[in-house]
Amino acid sequence: MNFYLPVTLYAEEHCVRTHQKELAALGTKALLVTGRRSARLNGSLADVTEALDSCGVSCALFDEIEENPSIETVMKARDRGLAEGVDFVVGIGGGSPMDAAKAIALMIRHGREDASYLYRAGADSSALPVAAVPTTCGTGSEVTPYAILTIHEKRTKSSISHRIFPALALLDPRYLLTAPASVLCDTAVDAFGHLAESWFNANATDYSRMCTRQGLEIWSRSRAALEGISGAAGLTPETISGAAGLTPETCLNLLNASAMAGMAISHTGTSLPHGLSYYLTYEAGVPHGKAVGYFLAGYLREAPADERDAFLKIAGFSGLRQWEEFYAQVCRPQPASPDILEQAVRGLMQNPAKLKNSPWPASEAMLRRICR
Amino acid sequence: MNFYLPVTLYAEEHCVRTHQKELAALGTKALLVTGRRSARLNGSLADVTEALDSCGVSCALFDEIEENPSIETVMKARDRGLAEGVDFVVGIGGGSPMDAAKAIALMIRHGREDASYLYRAGADSSALPVAAVPTTCGTGSEVTPYAILTIHEKRTKSSISHRIFPALALLDPRYLLTAPASVLCDTAVDAFGHLAESWFNANATDYSRMCTRQGLEIWSRSRAALEGISGAAGLTPETISGAAGLTPETCLNLLNASAMAGMAISHTGTSLPHGLSYYLTYEAGVPHGKAVGYFLAGYLREAPADERDAFLKIAGFSGLRQWEEFYAQVCRPQPASPDILEQAVRGLMQNPAKLKNSPWPASEAMLRRICR
Repeated sequence: MNFYLPVTLYAEEHCVRTHQKELAALGTKALLVTGRRSARLNGSLADVTEALDSCGVSCALFDEIEENPSIETVMKARDRGLAEGVDFVVGIGGGSPMDAAKAIALMIRHGREDASYLYRAGADSSALPVAAVPTTCGTGSEVTPYAILTIHEKRTKSSISHRIFPALALLDPRYLLTAPASVLCDTAVDAFGHLAESWFNANATDYSRMCTRQGLEIWSRSRAALEGISGAAGLTPETISGAAGLTPETCLNLLNASAMAGMAISHTGTSLPHGLSYYLTYEAGVPHGKAVGYFLAGYLREAPADERDAFLKIAGFSGLRQWEEFYAQVCRPQPASPDILEQAVRGLMQNPAKLKNSPWPASEAMLRRICR
Repeated sequence: MNFYLPVTLYAEEHCVRTHQKELAALGTKALLVTGRRSARLNGSLADVTEALDSCGVSCALFDEIEENPSIETVMKARDRGLAEGVDFVVGIGGGSPMDAAKAIALMIRHGREDASYLYRAGADSSALPVAAVPTTCGTGSEVTPYAILTIHEKRTKSSISHRIFPALALLDPRYLLTAPASVLCDTAVDAFGHLAESWFNANATDYSRMCTRQGLEIWSRSRAALEGISGAAGLTPETISGAAGLTPETCLNLLNASAMAGMAISHTGTSLPHGLSYYLTYEAGVPHGKAVGYFLAGYLREAPADERDAFLKIAGFSGLRQWEEFYAQVCRPQPASPDILEQAVRGLMQNPAKLKNSPWPASEAMLRRICR
């Protein structure tokens, strides 16, 4: 068994400013990678820009990362980075910009390669240094080596073939306060999925469980707050979390739980729910965490009852039914179409790398049970 | 709060051989740093030598590290390393060789400096790469940045002023089987001390507790085995642990608990029991873990009862009395002399860096209570 987590992480309010020297030390010119809106709204982009500026480090901005970023977008950002002569990359936002930042850092470093390099197993994985500033609480990308991209020709998502850890992760809970309540609920369910899929995983060890166990405990502290913001009177999908009653303290717990869940899957990988979820997201546009959550009850039902209950107890759930009620309340899922589920089962059966992470022999019958 | 643990760790039988390429990749010529006997007896020195040899990396041996290594020994080893032209250092053994290896790696890198550089705060801490191969189960040095040396002029021990993490830690449980049962009991108490002093620490965070909590859980798995080998019929201080009934599985748990305890104190530092213990070791030659254990009940008694009981429960103890009985059985302590305890209290009161790690305001009266 092994432990490997070469990320320097800070988690506290104003940490971008406090640790700006460590951020600036990553290079001489940064490519800032964000989505179109939220990094401006929550202040993270301004904080990073000011921090670099005050250290005399210049930067260029690529703010066109879409949700579930495509290979095409990564290549467009790579070209921008090459043209700007950047020597490090800062991913700011949810999993999409942070994952894209890693892929962009790889492709700038290998500036003459085409997009096929992203999925060339065994090729040199050196990349520009990456810093990550999460503004949601699910992906854990700030501490994982994964970069999940959308592959249109395969009609699904998949992590690139290179393991690229951020050098620096800066977690400021203030950024979460302006996120829509629905986004925090969705991403917190993603983090719970990472915890469940790492705990019940063929690759689980005492070191991965070190991260899972504490991540679950921290995650449980925010459970009531998530129920609160998802059930607040007058709530719309766009109500921001701060207005819905979320506090910086709860946001910090959500960020730390998400990071610990990321540390856990850095050691084990994810398992069947993630593998199935990618189809639901690609074909039906279901947000990632909600899509993962769709399969979690079925996955946990495969576990021995005593192990499942012990796991759920750490997270503060009395049993599987209470988890299902929680998921229904905070994510409000719609039934998935049988066609898409069928496609997910057949697609995942062709993915031995994901199937082997299941602690129980994965079969088509089992996948169908998980989809029910 | 922060998380930082830049060590690649492998924990499994034969891990030196399995991961020899990563070991050899640290340089072109290694200085192997060991004590006089145990690294030969337990096979670790032979494993490391063969691993490097089979990768075409040469090495020189410095096998004169004493228990509680002195600055003088470090400087002697540094001279050997410079003369041999080594470019990385491998510490093999208990805390003494591993701590010394870090100090030696620093002083080789700064080959023109004298011994005062070891304690020069703020000076450049760059060092040759270090690998660590633990053969006891207490120090955690394989994952910490600490290097505790004996300072004869101050009649105590203290960590150098530089933080030097090993790049690689290789934990093979087989090496523990030839250690005397008394050594494993003593070092396991040291690991428990790290867990207690990191849990009850002014610098404790959710990340340090991630390591502490799991470390405690893993530590508890070996508790009965430690009681078994310390109480086995016909046991002498030299009976080796394998002969006393210890299994590789238990040894792996002891190693992992020790490493997680090391990860915890990497984030928090140790606290009052360690600070007091150094005097007991220096003046009365009490082995390190036994000396730390001497003060643990008193330290835990300072904690709020509910927090103390929750902590002890994770380790498998019903309460403080059961811990005291355990310590008495596995370490067989003698009463310390009042003069030495007085010296410890007065000495520690002059050490603000250690005092500030206490979660409760440290006073002379409190230190006296802990010594009772």
